[in-house]
Amino acid sequence: MTQWGKRADMVVHESDPFNAEPPPGALAGAVLTGLDSFYSRNHGPIPDLNPETWELVVDGLVDTPLNLSLGQLRDRFVEQTLTATMQCAGNLRAGFLKVRDIPGEDPWGPGATSTAEWTGVRLADVLSAAGLQPAAAHIAFEAPDVSQLATPPQAYGGSIPAAKAMAGETLLAWAMNGEPLTALHGAPLRVVVPGWIGARSIKWVQRITARREPSDNYFQATAYRLLPPQADPTHAGPGVGLSLGAIALNSAILSPDDQAHVQAGPLEIAGYALAGEDRGVARVDVSIDGGDRWVQAELVSQPSAWAWCQWRTTVLAPPGDVEIIARAWDTTAAMQPESAAQLWNPKGYVNNSWPRIHIHASARIAS
Amino acid sequence: MTQWGKRADMVVHESDPFNAEPPPGALAGAVLTGLDSFYSRNHGPIPDLNPETWELVVDGLVDTPLNLSLGQLRDRFVEQTLTATMQCAGNLRAGFLKVRDIPGEDPWGPGATSTAEWTGVRLADVLSAAGLQPAAAHIAFEAPDVSQLATPPQAYGGSIPAAKAMAGETLLAWAMNGEPLTALHGAPLRVVVPGWIGARSIKWVQRITARREPSDNYFQATAYRLLPPQADPTHAGPGVGLSLGAIALNSAILSPDDQAHVQAGPLEIAGYALAGEDRGVARVDVSIDGGDRWVQAELVSQPSAWAWCQWRTTVLAPPGDVEIIARAWDTTAAMQPESAAQLWNPKGYVNNSWPRIHIHASARIAS
Repeated sequence: MTQWGKRADMVVHESDPFNAEPPPGALAGAVLTGLDSFYSRNHGPIPDLNPETWELVVDGLVDTPLNLSLGQLRDRFVEQTLTATMQCAGNLRAGFLKVRDIPGEDPWGPGATSTAEWTGVRLADVLSAAGLQPAAAHIAFEAPDVSQLATPPQAYGGSIPAAKAMAGETLLAWAMNGEPLTALHGAPLRVVVPGWIGARSIKWVQRITARREPSDNYFQATAYRLLPPQADPTHAGPGVGLSLGAIALNSAILSPDDQAHVQAGPLEIAGYALAGEDRGVARVDVSIDGGDRWVQAELVSQPSAWAWCQWRTTVLAPPGDVEIIARAWDTTAAMQPESAAQLWNPKGYVNNSWPRIHIHASARIAS
Repeated sequence: MTQWGKRADMVVHESDPFNAEPPPGALAGAVLTGLDSFYSRNHGPIPDLNPETWELVVDGLVDTPLNLSLGQLRDRFVEQTLTATMQCAGNLRAGFLKVRDIPGEDPWGPGATSTAEWTGVRLADVLSAAGLQPAAAHIAFEAPDVSQLATPPQAYGGSIPAAKAMAGETLLAWAMNGEPLTALHGAPLRVVVPGWIGARSIKWVQRITARREPSDNYFQATAYRLLPPQADPTHAGPGVGLSLGAIALNSAILSPDDQAHVQAGPLEIAGYALAGEDRGVARVDVSIDGGDRWVQAELVSQPSAWAWCQWRTTVLAPPGDVEIIARAWDTTAAMQPESAAQLWNPKGYVNNSWPRIHIHASARIAS
């Protein structure tokens, strides 16, 4: 085990703040990601909160501001369980680094994506109990983890549109895969915004504020925005570029490993595909000839509309160096863009280009 | 004027059934498409219905089947007006024909997309009045236009999921841009399913049936499905491939015309971009150097969440042959795929690859 109860082979990008992802193979074929493998993305030190004294404040454009203990949350609202995938906006940034360097950002692989069964209450139920006012267009979240990435340092926060907050899938969760939430993953309570970038699923949430405008927190107004390629991120102020929210269609090859040495012949390829908000994964194709011919992969399981689709197929690997490419299609027949170079952006978000791995297949020895 | 009151320069792909689109320039810069320019996609002869005797039947999984005259529809339900873009799933098929032939399908350009202000009533209100039953998962539509494309010939029909039918934007419309619907566009009443392929916005609708399953009409079960590239469409039976519904992100260059001769120097480029269901157009880029450098176009207007976004920019055209490329991004930071060759499919649907036009710019003569 490494830090925080994670598996020994976790890829740790930073220790402080702790930022780590499992090796791709650890995600292959598993509908739910074990707690020892689930990726961890942090912007500051992990808070150690006392659940006995902890309270959630609900305020802003509501008729009745609330102060809720964990016990009151459990008692007053109906418990919900939902399987949902969480994905960091920086997932697969490593693919961008081959195009051009991105200083100051971690080189996440495909493992900044994980799936859990979340248990808690609907955010909609809590907001309804507080009497959400019609003028409330955005729901902002505040947490106590202070990040040095903002100048001056600022506690983490963000917001989602009220419509998403009031959709049944958005949860305030206290458990993950049937286990109480750990400190690392946001105990005692975190937001889970299925289908949206992980940055909006705020951990250690302690204040929920209904507002007219999006949160002006650094991580909403300035970070997690897609800038045009020529922009200088060190001087991009609030509101520049495209605010990231719902996740764009993407996929990854999880097995075999990139740069693996395998035997020529039948080779199983496995991965995930993830369609964002309101879309499903309709098809995944795999090519071993540079995209000239494609085989359709088998869609193994999509445990909920809010979770990834695990896929697999078998190809006949010829001897030598082989590039394996995948591409996913969603239920609108939208397909992933081809090239990471065309998606490169200064903060390295949303690399949803076709995943590619390279393997070396040795000829089988005749027996 | 050509047939059906359309402009003289309409591009008529077929006269019987009438299939025609306006030249791209006719759509440039106009939020609403004039009735003389609006594209027309038909699968059979245009019905000539008598609005005095016409009735709409609402049946299937409803508590109270309804027979409604046009007057009753107007009297019993609240009139609604909505600006929405309609787009044929075959829009921009012409780009696929450069990759490989598609026998039996019309070579639509970017003009199989048009925008109108629709007036009518919410389909949701009519279904609620009939008492939609919980088991109703799909809402099917039937029309009287008989198509020879099905074997044996079959009247046109299709269906949408009940959730989309009950969404406020789905209308039963009797007027278009403030004018009574013409026979060509579906008089006396048509369905308008904003954000979905035009094939589901059924003209001359006369029966609406709540069902457990999607419609088994040929145009739902067999046509308007995205087949894998190697499939033989003449032998693809019902249920093969991906059923098309919500529209995938796409865009077009409307001006200048493809193959235009222009003067080198400042050149205005204009077009539309369309994000499907629940998404908006966030950014449009234009390149004149093959995709190496891009300029961001100005997003001129998006009259409703269900309509196209008109865009324009000015580039400095160098003398000689120039390829102009565009690409749109939606509010999830999804971007259009690059290459039509990678999207080619046997029926030629959903060519949402980067639009490309070629112009010849003559050097300005020094004065």
